[in-house]
Amino acid sequence: MNIESFFSENTKKALENNPPGEWMPETPNKCIRLSSGFPEPSLVPVTELKKAIVGLLEEEEDLPFHYLGSPRMANLKRQIQKRLVERQIDVSDGELLITSGACQAIDLIARILITNDTTVAIEAPTYMEALEIFQNYTHNFISIPVDQFGLQTLEFEKILVERKGKGLPLPRFLYTIPTFQNPTGTTMTLHRRQHLLELASEYNFLILEDDAYGELFFDKCLLSLKALDKKGRVLHVGSLSKVVAPGLRIGWVVGPSKSITALAWFKKDLDHPFSQAAMATYLDNTDFQLRLNVLRGRYRTKCEVLILALEKFLPKSVSWHIPEGGYFVWIKITGVDTGGLLTKALLEGVSFVPGKHFFLDQNAGKEFLRLSFSYSSEKEIVQGIKKLGKVVKGYLK
Amino acid sequence: MNIESFFSENTKKALENNPPGEWMPETPNKCIRLSSGFPEPSLVPVTELKKAIVGLLEEEEDLPFHYLGSPRMANLKRQIQKRLVERQIDVSDGELLITSGACQAIDLIARILITNDTTVAIEAPTYMEALEIFQNYTHNFISIPVDQFGLQTLEFEKILVERKGKGLPLPRFLYTIPTFQNPTGTTMTLHRRQHLLELASEYNFLILEDDAYGELFFDKCLLSLKALDKKGRVLHVGSLSKVVAPGLRIGWVVGPSKSITALAWFKKDLDHPFSQAAMATYLDNTDFQLRLNVLRGRYRTKCEVLILALEKFLPKSVSWHIPEGGYFVWIKITGVDTGGLLTKALLEGVSFVPGKHFFLDQNAGKEFLRLSFSYSSEKEIVQGIKKLGKVVKGYLK
Repeated sequence: MNIESFFSENTKKALENNPPGEWMPETPNKCIRLSSGFPEPSLVPVTELKKAIVGLLEEEEDLPFHYLGSPRMANLKRQIQKRLVERQIDVSDGELLITSGACQAIDLIARILITNDTTVAIEAPTYMEALEIFQNYTHNFISIPVDQFGLQTLEFEKILVERKGKGLPLPRFLYTIPTFQNPTGTTMTLHRRQHLLELASEYNFLILEDDAYGELFFDKCLLSLKALDKKGRVLHVGSLSKVVAPGLRIGWVVGPSKSITALAWFKKDLDHPFSQAAMATYLDNTDFQLRLNVLRGRYRTKCEVLILALEKFLPKSVSWHIPEGGYFVWIKITGVDTGGLLTKALLEGVSFVPGKHFFLDQNAGKEFLRLSFSYSSEKEIVQGIKKLGKVVKGYLK
Repeated sequence: MNIESFFSENTKKALENNPPGEWMPETPNKCIRLSSGFPEPSLVPVTELKKAIVGLLEEEEDLPFHYLGSPRMANLKRQIQKRLVERQIDVSDGELLITSGACQAIDLIARILITNDTTVAIEAPTYMEALEIFQNYTHNFISIPVDQFGLQTLEFEKILVERKGKGLPLPRFLYTIPTFQNPTGTTMTLHRRQHLLELASEYNFLILEDDAYGELFFDKCLLSLKALDKKGRVLHVGSLSKVVAPGLRIGWVVGPSKSITALAWFKKDLDHPFSQAAMATYLDNTDFQLRLNVLRGRYRTKCEVLILALEKFLPKSVSWHIPEGGYFVWIKITGVDTGGLLTKALLEGVSFVPGKHFFLDQNAGKEFLRLSFSYSSEKEIVQGIKKLGKVVKGYLK
């Protein structure tokens, strides 16, 4: 019996487009992981989380182990609302849904908005996991280029005008990471943000704003699309994975209440009571502004170390964008296929993510790669870039 | 702007069919909850879980808080494989997927198998949450009646013969809870299990076996459909929610490796590293057979207490099925609308689930209700049934 014959058409298509196992090669354990978009282990508040968990269990006994038992779960929503208000996003209870990380949020949004023939606009390049998720639902994409000032809204407008003129379908929504984008580290200017919101009104589409890195600015904070949105066109996705710990999987969506009702309907009881109660207790006990200041300082320093190492060890023909926050630096090496480069880099003991994984048209990403300064220590970053420099120079010979 | 105009057709249909908020009325806090399919609080191993979590954090520090950091996560798979082998289900790594509870497993299976026009066979009555999930994907259902010996396979065969004769679509899969069914507590006989597997081969459909209660037998254990399946037609879903703690949300799917690959593709990184590592540590430290024996004894006693109370306090016209395991007793009260009865019962201080919620055709469930003996204490069970008796007698006057 062939089980694949029972798969839905969508499933067959998704598997065909994305052969599982042919994604990134495994990173050997001893490698310096400049590929990983993880927080630095020493910046995960282990002691505080442990204290929160032990305290929670002493206070509530069995409650956090039940489906909906822990009273602390309600605090999580309040704590997230507090974080949002500080960023000028004022949300009522009915406009906020807690999810299992940003990925569940993106997946749920895809579920409520996308039909087989829905057109979705994405940034090129964009977060690969989001791209994979969308490809599970549709195959109609419009790729909008990103430059050092973020998504090129003028290019986007041109595309919209042209599609409208030709009677082609307009996008139902745009997926964007406007602040410290994954993978480029770029930030959309305020002017472009406003232009984008105008386009959304004019061409009647929604904006899915992925703000996973928004709180991790080095110096100055920009208003999010959601904070600027007066028309209710922005669904805002956030996460505590980058600022607390990814393993507890806490994310959220902010949006018009009717969209939250629909998302909640598809989410069902896929809540994680224990994780939510643990995170709520941790936040209740934490001066989060203080924590954010520490994180910002640390990641700024690590970014500086990476940039200095790039200047020191990479050949002159290599260029990059210096980010103002987040986790990533985007590198261009003209004349190099970064997919092939990775094989050599892994042998040398350093990993990165080849640019192709962030593009729908993988060819477009051939000369790019993403480096992360978040996970590795300063010492490892310097060693890693030194190794990368050696590999690049060998490759260019 | 009307956000609903952006919803996919499927979403609109799902919300229309299932208006959120019009489901069960809220159960007041002081009520005796004979509605809740939760484990008894005192049977959740709080001390052991706490010990496991503290031990895990001491041993692994920050690792369980990362995306994939904890080495213990691998043990969870081995522990579940061990539990399955004891039930004569021998699975390789590639045939097992860990999920966030049984619900995520059911949702993922629906995703890979169902297209808009897919026909799904379900038991009538069946687990309401599964029914809700399927309704998010299709509206073509075949309801197969359940009697005291489980799903009526002869009736099912008649329906299949008739549909084949008429050229109507046959089901792509059947969703069944063969052992201690939710809500009826009934168990499919071995004879019917074999018949069902023959039907699956003859009419070329898959079987989604929900085995959430399978380990909670009072006296004797029956072979699951998966253990009997020689053709690879059964996707077997299990959970630790009923035998350890629902709040950690650990479930799984067993199936042919190609189906597991597809399910994993749609699951993405929606894993819960912390939960999985915590549960693995708990299982590593626990004599689970001993624990199961304790649970079986306790739930058997509680079921007996409930049945005795029913005999004592309910009028003669009320009938029920005595289960041989699980959490539930299914009651029939001829001439009573149990939806209306619930309003009065809640005022009296006891809750149950009206039968209608377990049927696609809600009218079919009008005279039934589900009682759970799992959550409340023996004393509460007796008090609750006494209250229920009073309400029923008042209603029948």
